[in-house]
Amino acid sequence: MKIEKARPYVVKNLKYALNPSSIAVVGASRYPTKVGNKVIYELVKWGYKGKIYPVNPRADEVLGFKAYHTLRDIKDPVDLVFVAVPAHLVRSIVEDAVSIKAKMMVIATSAFKEIGRGELQNDITEYCRKNELPLIGPNLVGMGSPYQHFNCGFIPYLPVPGPVAMISQSGANLLAALGTSQMSHFGMSFFVGLGNKADVDFSEFIEYANEDPNTKCLAIYIEGLDSPEAFVDSCRKVSKPIVVIKVGRSKIGVKAAFAHTASENPNSDAYYDKIIKDAGAIRATTWQEFLDVSLALGNQPALNGDNIVMITNGGGAGLLSCDHFERLGLSLHELKEISPMLEQRIRAYMPMFGSPLNPVDISGTASVIQYKGAFQQAFRDPNVHGVLGAICPTAVTDVLGTAKAAIEVYDSCKELGKPFIMICQGGEECREAIMLLRDHGIPAYPTAEQAVNAMVALYRYGTRKK
Amino acid sequence: MKIEKARPYVVKNLKYALNPSSIAVVGASRYPTKVGNKVIYELVKWGYKGKIYPVNPRADEVLGFKAYHTLRDIKDPVDLVFVAVPAHLVRSIVEDAVSIKAKMMVIATSAFKEIGRGELQNDITEYCRKNELPLIGPNLVGMGSPYQHFNCGFIPYLPVPGPVAMISQSGANLLAALGTSQMSHFGMSFFVGLGNKADVDFSEFIEYANEDPNTKCLAIYIEGLDSPEAFVDSCRKVSKPIVVIKVGRSKIGVKAAFAHTASENPNSDAYYDKIIKDAGAIRATTWQEFLDVSLALGNQPALNGDNIVMITNGGGAGLLSCDHFERLGLSLHELKEISPMLEQRIRAYMPMFGSPLNPVDISGTASVIQYKGAFQQAFRDPNVHGVLGAICPTAVTDVLGTAKAAIEVYDSCKELGKPFIMICQGGEECREAIMLLRDHGIPAYPTAEQAVNAMVALYRYGTRKK
Repeated sequence: MKIEKARPYVVKNLKYALNPSSIAVVGASRYPTKVGNKVIYELVKWGYKGKIYPVNPRADEVLGFKAYHTLRDIKDPVDLVFVAVPAHLVRSIVEDAVSIKAKMMVIATSAFKEIGRGELQNDITEYCRKNELPLIGPNLVGMGSPYQHFNCGFIPYLPVPGPVAMISQSGANLLAALGTSQMSHFGMSFFVGLGNKADVDFSEFIEYANEDPNTKCLAIYIEGLDSPEAFVDSCRKVSKPIVVIKVGRSKIGVKAAFAHTASENPNSDAYYDKIIKDAGAIRATTWQEFLDVSLALGNQPALNGDNIVMITNGGGAGLLSCDHFERLGLSLHELKEISPMLEQRIRAYMPMFGSPLNPVDISGTASVIQYKGAFQQAFRDPNVHGVLGAICPTAVTDVLGTAKAAIEVYDSCKELGKPFIMICQGGEECREAIMLLRDHGIPAYPTAEQAVNAMVALYRYGTRKK
Repeated sequence: MKIEKARPYVVKNLKYALNPSSIAVVGASRYPTKVGNKVIYELVKWGYKGKIYPVNPRADEVLGFKAYHTLRDIKDPVDLVFVAVPAHLVRSIVEDAVSIKAKMMVIATSAFKEIGRGELQNDITEYCRKNELPLIGPNLVGMGSPYQHFNCGFIPYLPVPGPVAMISQSGANLLAALGTSQMSHFGMSFFVGLGNKADVDFSEFIEYANEDPNTKCLAIYIEGLDSPEAFVDSCRKVSKPIVVIKVGRSKIGVKAAFAHTASENPNSDAYYDKIIKDAGAIRATTWQEFLDVSLALGNQPALNGDNIVMITNGGGAGLLSCDHFERLGLSLHELKEISPMLEQRIRAYMPMFGSPLNPVDISGTASVIQYKGAFQQAFRDPNVHGVLGAICPTAVTDVLGTAKAAIEVYDSCKELGKPFIMICQGGEECREAIMLLRDHGIPAYPTAEQAVNAMVALYRYGTRKK
């Protein structure tokens, strides 16, 4: 429901959604297949250290925890009330939550506005607002933070810790991102599924993320904005990069977005384009680009100029990259234009048949020492703004050795503030190299175009900052 | 070097490049770090069953094989001569190969036309043509086929067997694709790196692939065409889908492509667009799209209409998909427009809060049985042309069980000739599900947009076939 701008009492209380000392789970079930059971199971599994109060009118114990018949029976303070009971029961739970002075309400239950029950949803929202009890949801999947070992919802994974805060309207896409996080070492600071956004809105999580010390980049998935002014206002206060993906642009998507999270999209895609621009955010088109760009912005500084040097052992990756740079309006410059000295220096690290254009092709025979030398020369040249490296697995390539050398060079050149991005296109050892690089803060990707998308986003962020 | 059209003597002899009974490796080294050693090592490692003759003027044995000082010393017939000696020595090797009546010449050696030695390269080409000894290369990485357990070159992987023939000008990108093949179960029939294409050209491998019983789809990576007429002519003879990626469109890419494989690109990207269209091929833009589309066209029939039904347990994947369908000019239709009966039938397999639009959102609680029922209804409806399924890992989703159910339904509906594509976006179990689906001929992808690219390519192929 519309807000004018982010409400301070909500922003202040969001810490109880992401780092509560105690949680009451209303609808906690004794049966492992039920969602109300999964919530507690996942909390325990991922190491939640606070108090857990299952609430179930017909149980005295759930998963080893003493159960309460109602919220009012809990005599200790409750930070967070998590609700997973059928929609028609929710209103009275909210009243109970207010009466026990809970700090935060999360309603996971579906079947509200998205199936036509707008009145019920609005009634609950108004009640919560009147009582200053912030409500997240309904129709959501959950939230958590790897830094707090906190996984609260119907969520089978906790992401690996890292710099990206993911604020998602969709639960399923959030789950997918959390899975990707574990599998591909995409680090997150916290995550939340907003669902129908009956009360708490994007803007409030955006302001929270700006204060969160673990968050370096905000990744926001939007199906529809109820409060575009508040969104823009909050984004403009943020000193960190923001990446946005907005879906539901298609004619059929408008209907589907309503059925999904009750999002109303009367406005065109161009309307959202303008909002995202006004907000100073970077817009991603595809899901992959959304993740790739967020990873880069979370880990790397802005690119403060267009002198990018690409170093590769494969001409093919180089060509795919320079085509894609041009497609995105940021063509590479020839090495001799960037720095005539660099062309000479880098020749020492390639065979006679290598190519010192840009991409710099140090050839399929490139050794770890040659890579290291070429990377160092590129980083240390004062005319160079950023470095893109690529490893292709020829029969003589030491993929992991090269990744380790890249990490060494990067660590020794970090104070220069130049972005570094890697491509490792190939099989299992490239996958391993990607993980290793990511674990050391270097965004690495399996295809050239993904890496170029990331580098261009760092450039756009640099331009916007100015 | 330019050809008017594919030469029959070359096409006929390509079997000796991909399935030779005997190979002489000239430049076979005793030292494991040398490329001339790797070639034999990889041949043995992947199970090559033919005869191997190392040629080395200073060795009597290489990796346990009797070595010959010159090609002329080999008295038995030699199908394939693989050359990995410095460029200035190649001309005399070619003469030897002609004298021993070798069937096929492969020159891996670099440092020919791509660094300015066009005359030397042309001289060798003319000599080979005069003697009707087809020459692949120079400046290439190798070739092979998993069906023949044949891996010939500087190639650390053999791909998994499957339907895609990969004909690549770039060695490094070919290596990347081979790595991807193993890691992501992208099946190939054969692969070849063409390098500088001094003699044997795309068109000849295209005609060979058309006759190859294991090949169902041709995936072609082009940096520049010396013989565009021959390319178009051969493609038009092919009864199988052809996917093309053409790189080197950028200004700097034109130079880089020359430095890489001596490709001359005086023509604009629009020129190549027209050639690819005339050839009846599908053009991919990014490397990922190139692989994704080839996988689909290799495994699935053409999509003969635009009634695509999408079944998902996550609204987010559905929205990303319908947006991307619209972006590509193939909007989804609402289910009730496709088939009013289907809307009713499919409702039996979703909860009350599911959404029977299209995407059909059977909700995050979807069970294996619900998925199976929904898939079956969609496949069996006579108005439906193709089915797109999506699995998001909620806390109650049986990802692998759903993948198995999808395979069962697909197997029982195969005779309907309707394409089936899956999305599994998430963590490790989604990756497993993708592999399982791919192993059963169902193209499966980790993001919605990749799957949509694949489905749209099946539609474009269907349109072109008509």
